[in-house]
Amino acid sequence: MAADRVEIVEVGPRDGLQNEDRVLSVAEKIELIDRAVAAGVRRIEAVSFVNPKRVPQMAGAEEVMAGVDRGAGASYIGLVLNHRGLDRALAAGVDEVNVAIPASDGFCRRNQGCTVQEMLAAYDGIARAAAEAGMPVSVTVSTAFGCPFEGETAPERVVEVARRAAASGAVEIALADTIGVGVPRQVSDLVRRVGEVADGARLRCHFHNTRNTGYANALAAVESGVTVLDSSVGGFGGCPFAPNATGNIATEDLVYMLHRSGMETGTGLEALAELGEWLGVRLDKAPPALLGRAGGFPA
Amino acid sequence: MAADRVEIVEVGPRDGLQNEDRVLSVAEKIELIDRAVAAGVRRIEAVSFVNPKRVPQMAGAEEVMAGVDRGAGASYIGLVLNHRGLDRALAAGVDEVNVAIPASDGFCRRNQGCTVQEMLAAYDGIARAAAEAGMPVSVTVSTAFGCPFEGETAPERVVEVARRAAASGAVEIALADTIGVGVPRQVSDLVRRVGEVADGARLRCHFHNTRNTGYANALAAVESGVTVLDSSVGGFGGCPFAPNATGNIATEDLVYMLHRSGMETGTGLEALAELGEWLGVRLDKAPPALLGRAGGFPA
Repeated sequence: MAADRVEIVEVGPRDGLQNEDRVLSVAEKIELIDRAVAAGVRRIEAVSFVNPKRVPQMAGAEEVMAGVDRGAGASYIGLVLNHRGLDRALAAGVDEVNVAIPASDGFCRRNQGCTVQEMLAAYDGIARAAAEAGMPVSVTVSTAFGCPFEGETAPERVVEVARRAAASGAVEIALADTIGVGVPRQVSDLVRRVGEVADGARLRCHFHNTRNTGYANALAAVESGVTVLDSSVGGFGGCPFAPNATGNIATEDLVYMLHRSGMETGTGLEALAELGEWLGVRLDKAPPALLGRAGGFPA
Repeated sequence: MAADRVEIVEVGPRDGLQNEDRVLSVAEKIELIDRAVAAGVRRIEAVSFVNPKRVPQMAGAEEVMAGVDRGAGASYIGLVLNHRGLDRALAAGVDEVNVAIPASDGFCRRNQGCTVQEMLAAYDGIARAAAEAGMPVSVTVSTAFGCPFEGETAPERVVEVARRAAASGAVEIALADTIGVGVPRQVSDLVRRVGEVADGARLRCHFHNTRNTGYANALAAVESGVTVLDSSVGGFGGCPFAPNATGNIATEDLVYMLHRSGMETGTGLEALAELGEWLGVRLDKAPPALLGRAGGFPA
């Protein structure tokens, strides 16, 4: 049963930018974040505390967090993959940290330099330290719908990562279609299976529109009872290990679908569509989002 | 309840081409149709019998029908808007005719030069003559989800057009989101309402992906019991009266979603994706379809 309200987690400043050729300045990142929050977004993956030598697009996380306008009361999320990242996140004053744990070893090795079991062990340590610091932790299960190196991801592996994440105190678990191969029936099935082991953790879903299934997947998630969805303004985003995996679902297009379906998000469609177009100019490419081009309806 | 099998009506040769700047030659149209049929499509909107002075892209319908390979047993559909068109369709030897009847007067006047009531009256005459000739007739209710000139389309108007279409013997009624503004809840609602007056006529749905809701709408239609969907190879298509309304849902992307959801279509994904790319070269523009770019999964 679909909820009347869906919470959008804006991931444009992190997943949306991390694979782009053009690196935004700290001032541009701050403008992106502040404008998304002004458009009504109440949770935003603002920064990543990975090694900036490995992902130069994500440099300047501390400066970004110091510069954003915290007045609107939104929750700022930082991506963290290890203890060093957590320390930086705590020092920078984010409101939440998100840890990405792939469900497939092939992806985990290449993206995080370790096996899934090793990443789960690292996560346990991060979760303990975060709990001591009073910092909420969410876990994103990457490659939950398929892996660019291993092909199909067995649902049992996703369930196992989710179960371990919940056991170590994750307040929220996201199922991420990192390379955009999932279909709606897979979504319903995985949401049901993971819901059985989530142990009270909230479920979130994260879709890419690589093969035009992203919005149908979002709908399937909502129809399966998920109330939190990741999306990226303009629909930018990608994955360095899946070169054609461009495009998170776009916040403005998602919000269009949800609002016209009678669901609330608390965000303003027009401001989001303008922000997507603005970001396209900054990145010097046409946004995958269609709303900025086609316009809302009724006009 | 979703069916195990969904029938694809390939509309690329008609809706996909009718608004493109580049006009395909008769030989190119024949190749497009023959390749779609070779890829497993069993119904195809191959030609339009409108006045070629008004829609030059649709010229050569008779030559196209004379040139296609009828050996595979597919059903060839011709679009017809008046008696003259029906006479041409009968002479050209199509297997079915499709009549488009808008649900909004604003669109009907500009597209067809008459009111909806006048078009319904014309349709009655076409349907009688077609019945005498033993020619099956389907009706596409255009602007069923919204009109570029009038805004919202009241569901009651769609139901009324569908009721009249069924009463005059349409074997199939399509709900068409001509300008790509619909959302899944609207689909479920309209399918239910029209199903109540369809009087045994089969329901078909026709979606454009103008605002990235097209595939979610297709899913909603299938989940509501619809078993026939229009789509266009490469995702080309548009509407001259809605300049930004580019893009039917792409056959290859739709088939990817359906096949990976365990539904059969009888078509071959790889051949369709190649055909979408081929058409992009012919039209000198990148296909809105994403599958040709991203590749199937598993690879």
